[in-house]
Amino acid sequence: MDRQAAFSQELRRELWRAAEALADVGAARCLPLFRSRGLIADNKAARGFDPVTQADRDAEAAMRAWLAENRPSDAVLGEEFGPTPGTSGLTWVLDPIDGTRAFLSGAPSWGVLVGLDDGRGPVLGLVDQPYTGERFMGGLGRALMRRGGRETPLAARACARLEDAVLYTTFPEVGTAAERAGFEAVRDRVRLTRYGLDCYAYALVALGQVDLVIEAGLHPYDVQGPQGVIEAAGGIVTDWRGGPAHRGGRILAAGDARIHAAALELLAAVSD
Amino acid sequence: MDRQAAFSQELRRELWRAAEALADVGAARCLPLFRSRGLIADNKAARGFDPVTQADRDAEAAMRAWLAENRPSDAVLGEEFGPTPGTSGLTWVLDPIDGTRAFLSGAPSWGVLVGLDDGRGPVLGLVDQPYTGERFMGGLGRALMRRGGRETPLAARACARLEDAVLYTTFPEVGTAAERAGFEAVRDRVRLTRYGLDCYAYALVALGQVDLVIEAGLHPYDVQGPQGVIEAAGGIVTDWRGGPAHRGGRILAAGDARIHAAALELLAAVSD
Repeated sequence: MDRQAAFSQELRRELWRAAEALADVGAARCLPLFRSRGLIADNKAARGFDPVTQADRDAEAAMRAWLAENRPSDAVLGEEFGPTPGTSGLTWVLDPIDGTRAFLSGAPSWGVLVGLDDGRGPVLGLVDQPYTGERFMGGLGRALMRRGGRETPLAARACARLEDAVLYTTFPEVGTAAERAGFEAVRDRVRLTRYGLDCYAYALVALGQVDLVIEAGLHPYDVQGPQGVIEAAGGIVTDWRGGPAHRGGRILAAGDARIHAAALELLAAVSD
Repeated sequence: MDRQAAFSQELRRELWRAAEALADVGAARCLPLFRSRGLIADNKAARGFDPVTQADRDAEAAMRAWLAENRPSDAVLGEEFGPTPGTSGLTWVLDPIDGTRAFLSGAPSWGVLVGLDDGRGPVLGLVDQPYTGERFMGGLGRALMRRGGRETPLAARACARLEDAVLYTTFPEVGTAAERAGFEAVRDRVRLTRYGLDCYAYALVALGQVDLVIEAGLHPYDVQGPQGVIEAAGGIVTDWRGGPAHRGGRILAAGDARIHAAALELLAAVSD
């Protein structure tokens, strides 16, 4: 709370204006290409399927251009073009298309992610789904989803026991064999496990529809937007040891501290 | 094509009016409850998680009431209330909420499904996603997706080789151990496998975004709406032996006959 209190009302308004402008710029580049025919996917990873579309690159370039013009003293960290230093102590953490596999297969669970890192994690997070028209925003005075001009408050829901929890992850093949075993130990306890939603699963935690998200191998730009949204909604996002999540890696997001603790206990068996 | 040609222009219009009215009636009952807090889920299956919401029951009752009033000589088959006989030779096949697990966890991949079975499968199919506002329609002269007044033609895409295919299924735990092995034989060949979309995955085949959907343990009301949509878009829906799909069971949907044949070859190893 201290960290949030350091931002004046005026600065909060300015930073939210910036965050929303970035999401608008990113969405405007990505949405026209979503579901276009013949969208060309590169394979940027040597193994596996990790496509980068031209949309992804164009959108990040446009978001960076907006920042260079409007917030030149802030640092930037993005998926496509790496880190750019700044002097303000604030870093914009950008992922224009989180969920490129969803994007490439026409599923509207990808998102434009924006986080604002004060050095200790996101003080502001934004998850935008341009096709459904949903924008999830948390931190610096906001905890809401806006759609078509209508705002819905975000609030994670109570869930005391793993046995009652709904769990999401993007792939059933979560990370390494050891990481997968950790995930499966939790999966075997919960009420319902679902797959495939990318950043949208985190948004559903903030909406009070999902209780847990467990993932591994994430980057800072995959985490910070969703993390800011969930924390503002009263949820918890950490790594699998209960430490800071904002640098990525193994992520545990929960709507309720009690199932967060219960899941941590099961994930503790996974070695570093 | 013979089967479709048996329907006059006037009858086609009347049947599409009915199909859309049914989707409207179903969606009007389900959408207000989507993402409501404290939505109560029953466990109707003895094992596993197979919730039926009150929304599901209310919606099917309302759809049946519409048919009793407007199409009294047609038969009805629905998930919640079983079969009702008719005299016209046509059966409306209804699933007000396909994807109840998605519905209960706030994910907009559930759908209102309507099929019209002439005894040999759907001559018309409809998949409606009320939250995203998408309505996919195929058969009796239509192959389109309508959203916000805008119509997009449906057309499955060409895909010659499994190695280039995008595959979807709802659960990684597909059916029995043998069925799962069959699924995994295909999964190990394709470019990309994704999970979790329920009926929405079939709609993406019709949109030309996804190449294959493989599932097991389906009911007629899970299949006929999507099947009608995909067939009208030029795709193929059969069981795992290449036989009729409309009675449910093990389902293979493909956008291109070549990968349909290649997947069938791999699925042939699965015993009955």
